[in-house]
Amino acid sequence: MKQNKLVVTIGREFGSGGREIGQKLADKLGIEFYDKKLLQMAAKESGFCEEIFERQDEKPTNSFLYSLVMDSYSLNRYSTAPFLDMPLNQKVFLAQFETIKKLATKDSCVIVGRCADYALADKANCISVFLHADLEFRMKRIAQELDVTENKAGDLIMKKDKQRASYYNYYTSKKWGDARTYDLTLDSGKLGIDGCVTLLEEYIKLR
Amino acid sequence: MKQNKLVVTIGREFGSGGREIGQKLADKLGIEFYDKKLLQMAAKESGFCEEIFERQDEKPTNSFLYSLVMDSYSLNRYSTAPFLDMPLNQKVFLAQFETIKKLATKDSCVIVGRCADYALADKANCISVFLHADLEFRMKRIAQELDVTENKAGDLIMKKDKQRASYYNYYTSKKWGDARTYDLTLDSGKLGIDGCVTLLEEYIKLR
Repeated sequence: MKQNKLVVTIGREFGSGGREIGQKLADKLGIEFYDKKLLQMAAKESGFCEEIFERQDEKPTNSFLYSLVMDSYSLNRYSTAPFLDMPLNQKVFLAQFETIKKLATKDSCVIVGRCADYALADKANCISVFLHADLEFRMKRIAQELDVTENKAGDLIMKKDKQRASYYNYYTSKKWGDARTYDLTLDSGKLGIDGCVTLLEEYIKLR
Repeated sequence: MKQNKLVVTIGREFGSGGREIGQKLADKLGIEFYDKKLLQMAAKESGFCEEIFERQDEKPTNSFLYSLVMDSYSLNRYSTAPFLDMPLNQKVFLAQFETIKKLATKDSCVIVGRCADYALADKANCISVFLHADLEFRMKRIAQELDVTENKAGDLIMKKDKQRASYYNYYTSKKWGDARTYDLTLDSGKLGIDGCVTLLEEYIKLR
């Protein structure tokens, strides 16, 4: 039955292990995992070039002038989509939004980022999660993963979290990182990556 | 050992079932539960009259003029405490703060409200939880519990949550209701009261 597909959406602070936890959870549950893959699917369905999705991914909306320029530039080069009177970043957002909604009726899955919780807010079988951790924990993870200094990792974290918050707050009526936006939030630094996966499994059993 | 005492602190939206969940969790774990009882203990230890604690309990700080008036009034009538040059509400907060810190080194316990998570922020054996639920769920609970209409319950919820947020945000460096303030947050409307208790038990096992 369509209604029984389980969808877990994961919002996350940069470096908190959201992707790793989401992937492990999906593996344990034997369901699909969508992260960047979502972009390719949305690109394919919308007729936009994939490069456009990569460039706009979870970035805050641009200034009006900038988006006008980018828009005509991109439309000329790439677009075959019909909704010509809308800034490019909003078209990209809408295409992702539609793809997420389609996915959720097709298969059980875990989706990381991209306002998926908001796209699926009216679905009873959707569990929305937010993961965060203190700066030190995240700096260490990012420094190791991207092979940069911890200072550089700290800068990246600030920038990325600001982008994610702006993107989420612009496109939804809720607030990124506020407990009341989600069904469950966890500090992954305190509980650890595997601890979070196990607790999420328990949560799913209880719902 | 002092360090091994487990303390669970519960922040909560009004009507989300924080007291009930906290009490049930404490019963299951066989540990103490502190809610209003904390006020009596703090009153006894500080030398303030209990009535003062009741009146100031989780209320936002008053205006400067009001607190000056209340302060001299209260000091004349009730107080035997030494810190005379501080507004009354801050004295009451500090007395509670000290009582919470003492409790946490004495016995394992569950403490509801009163910025307990902030008082115990440096303790590794402290688990900070925030509970929330949608307005409809909470209106029904409060209407039943206080025997008022759902409209009246809605008004009470707005007022109480505003008070709790102001109180928390004034006295701590963190933000009430923000996921990043807590180790774990749950929507009790989605998971149910008993579901929350069970998940918290699982969380404690995993930490």
